[in-house]
Amino acid sequence: MDVATVENYFKNLQDEICRALEAEDGLAEFQEDSWEHNSGGGGRTRLVQNGNVIEKGGVNFSSVKGELHPRLRAQMELGPDEAYHFTATGVSIVLHPHSPKVPIIHMNVRYFELSDGTCWFGGGIDLTPHYVVSEDARLFHRTLKDVCDRHHPSFYPDFKNWADDYFFIPHRDETRGVGGIFFDYLKPNLPGKGQNLSKEELFHFVKEVGESFAPLYTHFMRQHRDEPFTEQEKKWQYLRRGRYVEFNLVWDRGTKFGLETNGRTESILMSLPPQAQWEYDFRPEPDSAEAETLALLVKGIDWA
Amino acid sequence: MDVATVENYFKNLQDEICRALEAEDGLAEFQEDSWEHNSGGGGRTRLVQNGNVIEKGGVNFSSVKGELHPRLRAQMELGPDEAYHFTATGVSIVLHPHSPKVPIIHMNVRYFELSDGTCWFGGGIDLTPHYVVSEDARLFHRTLKDVCDRHHPSFYPDFKNWADDYFFIPHRDETRGVGGIFFDYLKPNLPGKGQNLSKEELFHFVKEVGESFAPLYTHFMRQHRDEPFTEQEKKWQYLRRGRYVEFNLVWDRGTKFGLETNGRTESILMSLPPQAQWEYDFRPEPDSAEAETLALLVKGIDWA
Repeated sequence: MDVATVENYFKNLQDEICRALEAEDGLAEFQEDSWEHNSGGGGRTRLVQNGNVIEKGGVNFSSVKGELHPRLRAQMELGPDEAYHFTATGVSIVLHPHSPKVPIIHMNVRYFELSDGTCWFGGGIDLTPHYVVSEDARLFHRTLKDVCDRHHPSFYPDFKNWADDYFFIPHRDETRGVGGIFFDYLKPNLPGKGQNLSKEELFHFVKEVGESFAPLYTHFMRQHRDEPFTEQEKKWQYLRRGRYVEFNLVWDRGTKFGLETNGRTESILMSLPPQAQWEYDFRPEPDSAEAETLALLVKGIDWA
Repeated sequence: MDVATVENYFKNLQDEICRALEAEDGLAEFQEDSWEHNSGGGGRTRLVQNGNVIEKGGVNFSSVKGELHPRLRAQMELGPDEAYHFTATGVSIVLHPHSPKVPIIHMNVRYFELSDGTCWFGGGIDLTPHYVVSEDARLFHRTLKDVCDRHHPSFYPDFKNWADDYFFIPHRDETRGVGGIFFDYLKPNLPGKGQNLSKEELFHFVKEVGESFAPLYTHFMRQHRDEPFTEQEKKWQYLRRGRYVEFNLVWDRGTKFGLETNGRTESILMSLPPQAQWEYDFRPEPDSAEAETLALLVKGIDWA
C-alpha cells in the first residue's frame, strides 16, 4: 500500500462526502479551488456557502510534499542534517449550519509518510452542538465506539479521552462541544496498546472513521433542519461560534502549524464561521437551555 | 519614583480617557469590574457596549504581582532558581465603533518592575481604519512623531518600524491597519540609541503617549460619526473585524501570553469585536474603496 493509494482513497472520500452533503442540503453546491503548495503537492479545497442547511463549510483534500520543516524535525527528535522528504495527505471538514438547532461538525483523517518509510495515521471527529441534545451525543459516540471497537478495544476509550483533552478551550474551561475521538501518530506494527496493527489494518480503521461522517451528519441535518428557533437562540449560536473561533485560532495545533508554516490561508481558515459574536462577560440565565448546554461542555462524560 | 506612582498615574489615565470617551460618545457609559489575580494584584476592567459611536470597547487598568513565570524567566535568561517578584502594570484599550467610517483603535502603556530593581516601560498605539483615510493616518502619525521627537530623535523612526512589524498579519500578508508606534524593554540609563534616558524621562515619554490617546480618538469620532455608510461598507467592516480577531488570537503576544498564563479571560478578550464575519476567499472589486484600503495595508509607508 503506497502513498498514492491513500491519496486516491482520500480524494474519493472527499467526493462522496460532498455528494452526500449536497443531496441532503438540497441547495448547497461545493465550489472547488485547486492549489499547489510551494514545497510540492497541493490540494482541492471545496467550499460551500449559503446552502439550505449549511451556511458555510469546507470539505478539503490536500497532499502536501516537501522537506521536513526544522520545527517538525526538532519535535520528532531528528538531527538537523537529516533532511527527510515527507508527504502529508488528508481530508479536513468543518461545517457551520444556518440553524442553531443543527450542530457544527469537524472531521479530519490524515496520513503522514517520510522518505525513510516511517509513517502514521491521525484523525479526529467531533461534534459541537449549539444546544446539546443528549440523544444526538449518545448516537454520535456510540457510532464512533462501534467503529473503534471493530479495530482495537483500546481505541474508543483512548481516543475519546484524547478528544476531550484536545477539543478543550483552557481559557474558558470548556470543551468545544461533546467531543468525539482524536488520534495521532498511529504507527503500524508497534507492540503495545493499540499499536500492534499493520499498516493495512490501520488504514482500514481510518477509512471507517471517514465513512462514518456522512451518515452521521446527514442524520443530524435531517433531524433538526426544520426545527424553529428564536432570535435568542440565534444570538447564542453566534456566541458559541465565537468560542469556535477562539479554539481554532488560539489552540488548534493544525491551524497554528498551517498559519505559521505558510500554508494556504483560505483553506486553513475555512473552519471559521460565517459570522460570530463576542459579548463582554455573557452569562446565560440560570436553568436556561443555554446554561444546561454549558454544564455539559466538560470533559469525561460517558456518552457511549 | 516607585511602582505605586506609576500605578496611580495609570489609574488616573484610565479615568480621564473614560471621561473623554463618554463625553464625546454622548451615550456610552463604562461599566467597571474589579478583579484580583490569583498570584497577587488585580485590575479594573471598564467595558462599554452600545454607545452612540462606540459599539464595544474596553479601557482596562491592571497591576498584576507575583513570582516570575518560568517561561518569562527563560526569556529573560534568568536561572531557574532566581525567583523574582514582579509587578506588571498598565492601561490597555481597544475600541470598536458602530460605523465603518470610524477607525478601530488600540493603545497600551505598561511598566514592568522586578524585585531586584530591573524595570522597563513598553507600549504602543495603532489605528485600524476600515477604510484608510490618508489625512487621518497622517495626523495620527504626526501627532505620535511629535510626542516621540520631544524625548529622543530615534524614538519615532524606531517605534514606527517596530509597529509596522508588530501589527502585521503574516498569514494575510497585511498590516492590521496604518500602524503607529510600538516599543518594549525601554530601560533607564542604558547607553546607546534611545536608551540613555532616566527612569523619570522614560516615564514622562510614556505619559505623553498615554495622553495623546483621548484627543486623537475623540477627533476621529467627531470627524466621522455622522458620515453615512452603505450595507456593503458595513459588510466590509465585519470582514475587517475578522482580520482583527485573527491578529489578536493568532499573533498578538500579549493576548497569547495572557490566555496561556491564566489571565482574566474576559479582560484579555475585550479586544474582540462585537461581531465579525468570514467569507471564503473574499476579494474586493478592482479600484474599489476596499481595494484601495488593502493596497495601503503594507509596511513602510511614511505617513508622517
